[in-house]
Amino acid sequence: MLSTMQDTPLTIGRIVRHGTGMYSSSEVITWTGTEARREQYGQTGRRAAQLAHALRGLGVTGDQRVGTFMWNNAEHLQAYLAVPAMGAVLHTLNLRLFPEQLTYIANHAEDHVVIVDASIAPLLARVLPTFSTVRHVVVANGPVEALEAPAGVEVHSYDELLAGQPEEYDWPEVDERQAAAMCYTSGTTGNPKGVVYSHRSIYLHSMQVCMSDSMNLSGSDKALVIVPQFHAMSWGMPYAAMMVGASLLMPDRFLQPEPLAAMIAAERPTFAGAVPTIWQGLLAHLESNPVDLSSLRDVIVGGSACPPALMHAFNDRYGVHITHAWGMTETSPLGSVARPPAGVTGDEEWAYRYTQGRPPASVSARLIDDDGNEVPWDGESVGELEVSGPWIAASYYRQDEDGEGADKFHDGWLRTGDVGSFTPDGFLKLTDRSKDVIKSGGEWISSVELENQVMAHPAVAEAAVVGIPDEKWDERPLVAVVVREGQTVQPRELREFLEGRVAHWQVPENYTYIEEVPKTSVGKFDKKRIRAAFAEGKLDVTHLP
Amino acid sequence: MLSTMQDTPLTIGRIVRHGTGMYSSSEVITWTGTEARREQYGQTGRRAAQLAHALRGLGVTGDQRVGTFMWNNAEHLQAYLAVPAMGAVLHTLNLRLFPEQLTYIANHAEDHVVIVDASIAPLLARVLPTFSTVRHVVVANGPVEALEAPAGVEVHSYDELLAGQPEEYDWPEVDERQAAAMCYTSGTTGNPKGVVYSHRSIYLHSMQVCMSDSMNLSGSDKALVIVPQFHAMSWGMPYAAMMVGASLLMPDRFLQPEPLAAMIAAERPTFAGAVPTIWQGLLAHLESNPVDLSSLRDVIVGGSACPPALMHAFNDRYGVHITHAWGMTETSPLGSVARPPAGVTGDEEWAYRYTQGRPPASVSARLIDDDGNEVPWDGESVGELEVSGPWIAASYYRQDEDGEGADKFHDGWLRTGDVGSFTPDGFLKLTDRSKDVIKSGGEWISSVELENQVMAHPAVAEAAVVGIPDEKWDERPLVAVVVREGQTVQPRELREFLEGRVAHWQVPENYTYIEEVPKTSVGKFDKKRIRAAFAEGKLDVTHLP
Repeated sequence: MLSTMQDTPLTIGRIVRHGTGMYSSSEVITWTGTEARREQYGQTGRRAAQLAHALRGLGVTGDQRVGTFMWNNAEHLQAYLAVPAMGAVLHTLNLRLFPEQLTYIANHAEDHVVIVDASIAPLLARVLPTFSTVRHVVVANGPVEALEAPAGVEVHSYDELLAGQPEEYDWPEVDERQAAAMCYTSGTTGNPKGVVYSHRSIYLHSMQVCMSDSMNLSGSDKALVIVPQFHAMSWGMPYAAMMVGASLLMPDRFLQPEPLAAMIAAERPTFAGAVPTIWQGLLAHLESNPVDLSSLRDVIVGGSACPPALMHAFNDRYGVHITHAWGMTETSPLGSVARPPAGVTGDEEWAYRYTQGRPPASVSARLIDDDGNEVPWDGESVGELEVSGPWIAASYYRQDEDGEGADKFHDGWLRTGDVGSFTPDGFLKLTDRSKDVIKSGGEWISSVELENQVMAHPAVAEAAVVGIPDEKWDERPLVAVVVREGQTVQPRELREFLEGRVAHWQVPENYTYIEEVPKTSVGKFDKKRIRAAFAEGKLDVTHLP
Repeated sequence: MLSTMQDTPLTIGRIVRHGTGMYSSSEVITWTGTEARREQYGQTGRRAAQLAHALRGLGVTGDQRVGTFMWNNAEHLQAYLAVPAMGAVLHTLNLRLFPEQLTYIANHAEDHVVIVDASIAPLLARVLPTFSTVRHVVVANGPVEALEAPAGVEVHSYDELLAGQPEEYDWPEVDERQAAAMCYTSGTTGNPKGVVYSHRSIYLHSMQVCMSDSMNLSGSDKALVIVPQFHAMSWGMPYAAMMVGASLLMPDRFLQPEPLAAMIAAERPTFAGAVPTIWQGLLAHLESNPVDLSSLRDVIVGGSACPPALMHAFNDRYGVHITHAWGMTETSPLGSVARPPAGVTGDEEWAYRYTQGRPPASVSARLIDDDGNEVPWDGESVGELEVSGPWIAASYYRQDEDGEGADKFHDGWLRTGDVGSFTPDGFLKLTDRSKDVIKSGGEWISSVELENQVMAHPAVAEAAVVGIPDEKWDERPLVAVVVREGQTVQPRELREFLEGRVAHWQVPENYTYIEEVPKTSVGKFDKKRIRAAFAEGKLDVTHLP
């Protein structure tokens, strides 16, 4: 029995029509270094229409990809609206990738046009000759001369290209399951992998962002969008804002603590989203340059675990409420948000806020152990987090061609690579990445938890913990310690220090001293290099009996 | 180009799994007259599973209809979950319909089973012999003896039927476009018409209810659901609450001001939804029996226009914020909610709050004049409101068989029968029902506005205004006046009184005196009887030159 309801597709075109029409006086405010330039959504809609006409003029047809190589700004928002709404596919190029990765993704996605901010045009120019399908580059926010293009690539000025184009576009009806936008994730191994969002997944995700228990975004908000538009669609904030009429405050390239503080002081955003590093930097800056942060009703922190100390510092010193969330490019990204249950206060409330939070109704979650069995939600048992739902990836783009990344998906579930536990009431506590977890005698030991405990020792500057083979237990932890200058600490002392701080069976027997913990390009511990050094016999290991 | 996202259906089953699992300690609280009985959502989930097994046992298969003839209570909630999640279709019978209407809808929907509250079993018993497809009646909340059933109908006790059934049910995956629930609207003419909600439409609508700018329902809420579960699915509150873990306070049959006040005092709900009449009654009761209403963060009023005086009274006397909303059974019902734009205060804020509000992104709206042309959103031009979107009806159930109601749908739009204007920023101001609006010289005159102005005259007890044929202007207003006892007022005086209160061209020339305004069963002005009396020459009309 079919329902009698309308079969209306959930599309970006609907968001564009609604947002730019109903909320025509909401604003996108772009920071220019010392002040802001402003555009109302009505104007954004007219510019998006002009951009769509211009892109058609450059030959963009069907579901061709249009790349962006841009900061967060009004023009990038126009591309967010125009490209999917016209039926094409927006590909946000991550300008922090290595050159060879950029080449790979532009060619893999087969970008036809790239829109670039003049301020980073030289960065694009270096790799553009290797982009085999790009025929046009459109330079925004600066002179076309900013870009030196190779033969066969036409360069256009964004403003000139739009000038004189019609200010309305009859956005076509598209199937909600069609591709709308794509974003590549850069894992630590292999080539970047493409996630292709559908109109439906973005639409549903935008609704979720505006739900009270998620980001709670409303038409009364002014959202400071620090997460780059090339990182999982800025956590969905631009589309969600357009859906409900929230204004957007875009920092462009001014992501340092000083301009961020100035932006907050001048524009008084009510809401913001960024990774912990940004807030850590802002906090340090504010120490000596205090700014009124009271306009912020809520700040979402995700991307990596938010240190409790950071939450407390913002709470105690500035009255700013930090909300912890978890997600990844493959999850659109909203996977869970830490909103404590009703009526919980004090330390109990904080304990909930430290977790990665609860998944919403549209995200199913489970924890899987080494044998592929589901782990109970008892607050202690750990397993790898798997998720499924209407805005979770089912595969990577063109995965069937090379099979790369196929191991991340099985039986309709995404393997997140994150390891943790769930409380009985559904709050997620991530403890490790699955590739770093130490599997000892059938139990899992969190390398991150051990590192935190070792680093609590006053003589330890840094420490990384990896699993090494063990005949009896399969794996046991190896602690690689960086000792503070002018201090010493013996393996025996470290073992004693850890007794009582972690379960007895987790206390490591293996210790080694290193000069520094190797790091990845984004500053994360690169533990595969420690594992490699151990395997090659390059580390002197003390084994305590 | 297809996206790489999962194609997860949006179903009631997903809401049930999530709500009863993730929020197992949220409560459904049912009022019993002087106190409450409580059930946690975990238990609701187990009871729903038992109900599904029991219904299968009664032979319910496929998309068969299961009727409910119930108040708002825990058992009705269990049916809300079990019936659609098992793939069957929930049909909420409106117990306020006339007997012949009940017969019509039960037979039209082909209900197989009816679940009935013992307290209203006698009401059902009266019509049950005419229900041709019902084979089983399940009596909840009281003894089976409450129901006298005709031959061929088996009667069961709800509790006994569920006892011993498995407490888990493997809710099947269903197509999101399949029917989940149905509700008949009782227009003033013709037979009731069935609206069949899909899993998809209910799921999307539930998300909308929890969006900040709509009802803003969250896991911290305890929602007092006064709107009956047989009226447009209680405005979607039960499913939305289950989606986010809000607790539900269900009044059962205790809908009078006194028990409602007692419920609010005892249970301190944070949120409530009901038609204006309920709040009007509560307000009068509170005059002499004050109760602390401070737990209510927001009260949604819809179903008919909320008088500004009611909003102000609750605001000024009790600090309760009333939010005006518009919808109908055909719109699931959330069509618009009056949340003023950011930064608006004082009288301006009130002016926004008096309106029916803004439609969300999923509801498209337009105003159509007599010639089928769209009317501009200028705050003045009026037209009939038409809406479309994923939770708006495309037709009535089995409409193709008799064509009844087909005139309500055209080109993918629902004709709402409501007439009004939109402000440029998208706020809806309804002024009349389309069948009552007076079409004079190409312009539309609101009968409601004229009535309000006439009734402002001190000698007028009541007044109804209808359009009567006019050679020059097509239609002109006729004012039917009920004069206050012991008073008199001449047509000439009324005309003078109206000059300056309404536009000169709208001032009526035609007046008649009646003893009372005829009313429908639910107390609305029945203006078609005045029109009929005029057409039959039964009214003495004074025509002023």
